[in-house]
Amino acid sequence: MRNIIIASTSTVHGGKPLEYLLEELSIFFKNTSEILFIPYARPSGITHDDYTESVRLAFNKIDKTVKGIHEFANPKEAIKEAKGIFTGGGNTFVLVNQLYKNDLIDTIKNEVKNGTPYLGTSAGSNICGLTINTTNDMPIVYPSSFKTFGFVPFNINPHYLDPDPTSKHMGETRETRIKEFHKFNTQPVVGIREGSWLEVKGDTTTLRGTLDARIFEYDKAPYEIETGSELHGLK
Amino acid sequence: MRNIIIASTSTVHGGKPLEYLLEELSIFFKNTSEILFIPYARPSGITHDDYTESVRLAFNKIDKTVKGIHEFANPKEAIKEAKGIFTGGGNTFVLVNQLYKNDLIDTIKNEVKNGTPYLGTSAGSNICGLTINTTNDMPIVYPSSFKTFGFVPFNINPHYLDPDPTSKHMGETRETRIKEFHKFNTQPVVGIREGSWLEVKGDTTTLRGTLDARIFEYDKAPYEIETGSELHGLK
Repeated sequence: MRNIIIASTSTVHGGKPLEYLLEELSIFFKNTSEILFIPYARPSGITHDDYTESVRLAFNKIDKTVKGIHEFANPKEAIKEAKGIFTGGGNTFVLVNQLYKNDLIDTIKNEVKNGTPYLGTSAGSNICGLTINTTNDMPIVYPSSFKTFGFVPFNINPHYLDPDPTSKHMGETRETRIKEFHKFNTQPVVGIREGSWLEVKGDTTTLRGTLDARIFEYDKAPYEIETGSELHGLK
Repeated sequence: MRNIIIASTSTVHGGKPLEYLLEELSIFFKNTSEILFIPYARPSGITHDDYTESVRLAFNKIDKTVKGIHEFANPKEAIKEAKGIFTGGGNTFVLVNQLYKNDLIDTIKNEVKNGTPYLGTSAGSNICGLTINTTNDMPIVYPSSFKTFGFVPFNINPHYLDPDPTSKHMGETRETRIKEFHKFNTQPVVGIREGSWLEVKGDTTTLRGTLDARIFEYDKAPYEIETGSELHGLK
């Protein structure tokens, strides 16, 4: 049975990395003491080693050890043998570029389909959707495709941000951008606010955490769903 | 002689489209009464016709007529015959995708090199740099390349935005994003604030408008340049 957490962010304002999720994660990863970490998104361009170290510190609090996928000679084998996978945030384009370079997309899809628990935060959540066409990140590298895992039949917009009515900046709001996306694409987009996540168990996807989420469907007015709701019929 | 305006935005807060630039544009386009408009960036997904109409209204104020490139059977010929070109803002990925589909990148590069005045705003400015790796836009379509005109030997970041010290949102600031870009790329990035533009005359590039610009060079601390400064030695 599929077992996936798709979180808006790893860190909420004023908190430490993964802190708000740790209680949840100790249940989620209850069948393994070791997490395979995919550090490819490299926030602020930090190294795979440095990124893995910071995640190790967070998971140590719930008595889990962490190994970075870059520490393995064969990353595909590492995925196949993992009992729990975490892909952290950073730059979505850098992440996807590396996943394609190492030919890992299908391997991860298969293992997660077969039940390996997968946690994604931010960029690591973005790739749980159909494509990265709704990432917020700067396209600092050119990946060979924008297509991703499709664990859910829609796109994710992590760090969903409501419009700031006081802004004098002429850049587009997040809602404007997602509406633009729907001029060229038809799949739904789920905007997840920081502090909330989607929980996928088998075929059921439920919104968890403290905040509502905003749903954008093609040719419909956007609407809110409450935490605790199941996401039905989105495709 | 090359004659290019690379503007941060078409519209400043509280103003009308191109209003703050019109006086400048009536000099810039003094040798032509007709502007060829490239509406491919489709802000908010509006049609080429609707976008061209709004630009027509703005240029009418300085007695210029406007034709949209989509009105021509042969867009390459339209570029070659144009006496003045304007590419408006919208979504940079949508813009670049259409330019590649119509095989127009080299044609525009050549004509502008040979002296056709070119005005870009926002997405239309982004493509004046080496690549679109420093756009702020959402990647709602997947273009066949991120490489663009390279009228200047650096990348552009239009709508440059200073960090907001009061924000509690965990998304990256613009400066953080550009620093990340420099972990994977070495060309300089020029952040142009709304209300300012780069003027390229022959081989000389000068910052114009009301605000300073922020320069990001590989492996150097970012710094400000004052309006009126020439941009030397960036490459």
